[in-house]
Amino acid sequence: MELVNLEQFFKENKQLVEEYLTANISELHAPTVIVDAMKYSLDAGGKRIRPLLLLATLQSFGKDEAIGLPVAAAVEMIHTYSLIHDDLPCMDDDDYRRGKLTNHKVFGEAMAVLAGDALLTFSFQVITRLIKEYKIDPLTGMKLVEELAMAAGPEGMVGGQVADMEGEGKSLSLNDLIYIHEHKTGKLLEFSLVAGATLANASEEEIKKLREVAYHIGLAFQIKDDILDIEGEQEKIGKRVGSDTANDKVTYPSLLTLEGAKDKLQEHISAAKALLSSLELKNDLLHQVCDLIGNRDH
Amino acid sequence: MELVNLEQFFKENKQLVEEYLTANISELHAPTVIVDAMKYSLDAGGKRIRPLLLLATLQSFGKDEAIGLPVAAAVEMIHTYSLIHDDLPCMDDDDYRRGKLTNHKVFGEAMAVLAGDALLTFSFQVITRLIKEYKIDPLTGMKLVEELAMAAGPEGMVGGQVADMEGEGKSLSLNDLIYIHEHKTGKLLEFSLVAGATLANASEEEIKKLREVAYHIGLAFQIKDDILDIEGEQEKIGKRVGSDTANDKVTYPSLLTLEGAKDKLQEHISAAKALLSSLELKNDLLHQVCDLIGNRDH
Repeated sequence: MELVNLEQFFKENKQLVEEYLTANISELHAPTVIVDAMKYSLDAGGKRIRPLLLLATLQSFGKDEAIGLPVAAAVEMIHTYSLIHDDLPCMDDDDYRRGKLTNHKVFGEAMAVLAGDALLTFSFQVITRLIKEYKIDPLTGMKLVEELAMAAGPEGMVGGQVADMEGEGKSLSLNDLIYIHEHKTGKLLEFSLVAGATLANASEEEIKKLREVAYHIGLAFQIKDDILDIEGEQEKIGKRVGSDTANDKVTYPSLLTLEGAKDKLQEHISAAKALLSSLELKNDLLHQVCDLIGNRDH
Repeated sequence: MELVNLEQFFKENKQLVEEYLTANISELHAPTVIVDAMKYSLDAGGKRIRPLLLLATLQSFGKDEAIGLPVAAAVEMIHTYSLIHDDLPCMDDDDYRRGKLTNHKVFGEAMAVLAGDALLTFSFQVITRLIKEYKIDPLTGMKLVEELAMAAGPEGMVGGQVADMEGEGKSLSLNDLIYIHEHKTGKLLEFSLVAGATLANASEEEIKKLREVAYHIGLAFQIKDDILDIEGEQEKIGKRVGSDTANDKVTYPSLLTLEGAKDKLQEHISAAKALLSSLELKNDLLHQVCDLIGNRDH
């Protein structure tokens, strides 16, 4: 198994993804203000985790990452639309995200709703470039359309957001908490791994295992977030330490104790790595992603 | 050319479309409240113009309408999501639509935003049933995904909505007005005709003509709306006569005079029918649709 420099891989491919996003948005024949509003939030930074996971999966199966760009861009557009709508006054009512004014603070609420709608819709247009520009088999294209719609819609991300809203101020069980995270953030992560593997013509069996990997990675990511809220350094995590406790939020540590949450984190990381080891991957990119999630300090 | 009873065709197929919509929404594995919110607006009635145009086009090319159901349902879901978002307080701030409370008045603003997002996303999931249940060629499926995303997104319906908002309170030219209607309502109508023809394996040339038919039908529909606002009977059109003038809205009659608008309406209807006559259609359904648009009293 080839050893790849994860940092280098992320840096190079992040740039590729961002250039591809910019190129696609710039080509739009649409009123300037909606293009500006879409661009504003797409350009607002972020780790580009979902597209990078997709491209890393492609490379892990020995495929050229470039064929993944349309789908990588699509999943990032969907993630971005969800942030724009989540920040609206009627949802979380946030004025800032990553240190920048939120979309509706700059463009107004109506335009923010429409910019989200536009990004969500445009993501499905961008996916069709797989067929025209990358000569991918249309049946694979339709599978990815279905997979993305399921991951993003009422049975996926939107369903998780609804469950999260419904659960506010209520006492949640561990299963409730898992349902919320598995859907609100987990389903798009799962999509990223599955889409990469699908484009690499992985077998049904391999894709099934990657779904499980995504499940463990997604929950590990969330548990680590909860732990950092207690133990992290404010400057590094970019928000006040202890905000979950202050907001009476149900978290893994509040349900399992801090030690219990740390054990659970290790369980999920180990399970993900064991599954990855059972696949014949060309390099250790996804193993490194698992370690990164467990050890990150922000 | 076979003569078909349009009223009968609409009645039977409206029921088919509504049953198909209900069946698809009912199967969702999602939190009850989001399914209820999606259903509420889908069940709120309406003429189902877009799905019926799609099925009428299929039958005009001699194909079984049933294969059009997934796409017909998808376009109706997109239309419905656009109404939910348009009614939001930050957009048109409407409390009622077709005599029923708007989505956000029943489910709250946050849930209405999410119900719209869910319907928009789910529409692309439903389209993929073409492949699995109706054995349609996946390349045709991908073409329809692209066509629907273009018609609904920033280059289509969303772009028209933005232009409409930007134009409020400004003096618009006839070209501005055409841009708004062509995009805000025209593009989904165009999609309906093009999708029906695409599923019927129509030629590029035929599809090009149907795009022009859709252009004329869409503008004729809008001009007739503007005329009814001046000459219609309040009980039939369901809103106060003269509301456009009272709201200082730029309309066809305000730009062309009432007589000029009536002439323009007839021009568009004639142009649409001439184009239809140049196609070898199996029946007169689409001709009847043109007459209906020109002669309707509500």
